[in-house]
Amino acid sequence: MDKVNLTEKFAQFSEHWSPKIVAELNGQAVKLVKIHGEFVWHHHDHEDELFFVVKGTINEGELIVVPRGVEHRPVAEDEVHLLLFEPVETVNTGNVTEERTRSELDRI
Amino acid sequence: MDKVNLTEKFAQFSEHWSPKIVAELNGQAVKLVKIHGEFVWHHHDHEDELFFVVKGTINEGELIVVPRGVEHRPVAEDEVHLLLFEPVETVNTGNVTEERTRSELDRI
Repeated sequence: MDKVNLTEKFAQFSEHWSPKIVAELNGQAVKLVKIHGEFVWHHHDHEDELFFVVKGTINEGELIVVPRGVEHRPVAEDEVHLLLFEPVETVNTGNVTEERTRSELDRI
Repeated sequence: MDKVNLTEKFAQFSEHWSPKIVAELNGQAVKLVKIHGEFVWHHHDHEDELFFVVKGTINEGELIVVPRGVEHRPVAEDEVHLLLFEPVETVNTGNVTEERTRSELDRI
């Protein structure tokens, strides 16, 4: 069992809007992502998504669950570091395909 | 969509070894637990468990996944605050039943 240190993992990448998988369990994945600016409005038909703020101007230590079907769009005036918990196969832009769409994620 | 503030949630209880559910998604649950002392050695036949250290003498910001079938026993010399991510129905003592076994968890 490997320990995952979030600070070390976040230090391994700088690109925005490109989630990385750092752990998997029960068909779900823990993904880390750095965001900055406005994302695309989208929803996921079949998956609930959990967002946990690791670092950012939103209050740290807060989490939110976006239920399946609910339209959402992350926005970050300054860079925010998020931990996502959702199924492994969830695509970041849900029902929308655009240049920031990521379906095959790196494992770091 | 309600925001969940972990600090506020942890302030709502003090008992040890009694996980509380603070969010649910995709059949999984986010549970908070305060631990102190030694837990019972146990394993879970069918569920992987994620432990994330929110506050404690283990390094904060670290997480570990305990795969199904792997014998484990949390130990905390001083009080530690953990966030668990695992199926809703996972019982804290796995294959063992003892006085700290919790199967019906409060939602806070």
